[in-house]
Amino acid sequence: MTKNIKVNAAILIIGNEILSGRTQDTNTSTLATWLNSIGVKVDEVRIIPDIEKTIVDTLNTLRKSNNYVFTTGGIGPTHDDITASSVSKVFGLKYEINKEAFKILEAYYKPGEFNEGRQKMVWMPENAELILNPTSGAPGFSVENVFCLPGVPSILKSMLGGLKNKIVGGEPILSHTISLRTVESEIASSLTKVQNQNKDVEIGSYPFFQAGKLGVSIVLRSENQSKIDVCNSQILEFIKEKKIEVVNR
Amino acid sequence: MTKNIKVNAAILIIGNEILSGRTQDTNTSTLATWLNSIGVKVDEVRIIPDIEKTIVDTLNTLRKSNNYVFTTGGIGPTHDDITASSVSKVFGLKYEINKEAFKILEAYYKPGEFNEGRQKMVWMPENAELILNPTSGAPGFSVENVFCLPGVPSILKSMLGGLKNKIVGGEPILSHTISLRTVESEIASSLTKVQNQNKDVEIGSYPFFQAGKLGVSIVLRSENQSKIDVCNSQILEFIKEKKIEVVNR
Repeated sequence: MTKNIKVNAAILIIGNEILSGRTQDTNTSTLATWLNSIGVKVDEVRIIPDIEKTIVDTLNTLRKSNNYVFTTGGIGPTHDDITASSVSKVFGLKYEINKEAFKILEAYYKPGEFNEGRQKMVWMPENAELILNPTSGAPGFSVENVFCLPGVPSILKSMLGGLKNKIVGGEPILSHTISLRTVESEIASSLTKVQNQNKDVEIGSYPFFQAGKLGVSIVLRSENQSKIDVCNSQILEFIKEKKIEVVNR
Repeated sequence: MTKNIKVNAAILIIGNEILSGRTQDTNTSTLATWLNSIGVKVDEVRIIPDIEKTIVDTLNTLRKSNNYVFTTGGIGPTHDDITASSVSKVFGLKYEINKEAFKILEAYYKPGEFNEGRQKMVWMPENAELILNPTSGAPGFSVENVFCLPGVPSILKSMLGGLKNKIVGGEPILSHTISLRTVESEIASSLTKVQNQNKDVEIGSYPFFQAGKLGVSIVLRSENQSKIDVCNSQILEFIKEKKIEVVNR
């Protein structure tokens, strides 16, 4: 048997535009899906404003209770981009020009275009490791277990490939979904029994509406496929008894 | 001059399905937009798993540092719906059948349909105040400054109307957006100057892609319209100097 090594992470979304409701965050879902696929479980997400003290305090809490912390947002060229300077404070590091990042952006822009505004994006904590950005040049960076990514979803997505080798996950978290033409209250007590008999499997129950009809998706999650299989059989048994239809979704 | 009364709130999203990336949260944006419109500023959002200790500890932190806390998720009929029992623990209250909620659901369902699973949804903290649900019957509830809403976005939305009278906001937070055909680095230093001269206005800068073209939206936020107007004029001045095009968005 393989040993289950649990590796956890927190996601920290930095940005007033999410807190005001103006912008719909999608980075949480992107990062969480990707992290799960490489065996890292997201235990917590926080969304906080562009306020230095809040960023510093929150990062200090999260980096101690998680194997990894991923931040999004606040690494652009404007006055409200304060993630890099805040991370420098978190680790007591100098906030300075990263020479490697400078070279990358100097080569990326046309002569004369690497102006003062853009140069702000190469200021980082001393000795930060770069996270390359194949979309728009300006790299993200990491210090110890804190990885700082941009807020623009398409750019963030394009940077995950280059990040993969830097993250050591545990056992991948496997999942299996069973979608049913029923309502939660019909299966609640049977599902509780299955959960009680399978403590190691996380069983979620999620109502949905599809093509005007109600349904419930049951999601089984574990690092262990055979535990999921046992759970799945028990669920198929009670839905057969109850004559509940399984649906594709 | 009217006195600015700051009223703040935290949103607590409870649910493994968000943390796994399976489900994209949209309740944050819905709640934040609505809260802003009634003068409540969202200072923090947290997304946490369906674990009682985590729910209790997080609620105890958030309810002390915010005027209001809004939770979403975990009030359905299945074993993973533990918000109501957790809130009971937070306030040291009995977890019991709410008679008013019982009557509502008894009347809502056809005879014989108000089964054991559904009856779980009327278990609440002692003396909880109900939040009516015009969509699917089962009410949310509040205890002191903690308001518990469902996770299903359409149901949550339908409950906000009935909630409005229970929330006392401060000055509504006004905002004004200026969208420009430019990139952030072109305006970064001018925008920093405007921010430094207008400390009371929150100025955000957000790059966008629209119809294949890059742009930047500048968002000005304050409780005070005349402060926004001053800020706006200063921005219009520098974009005129720089010959930057204003675009509709």
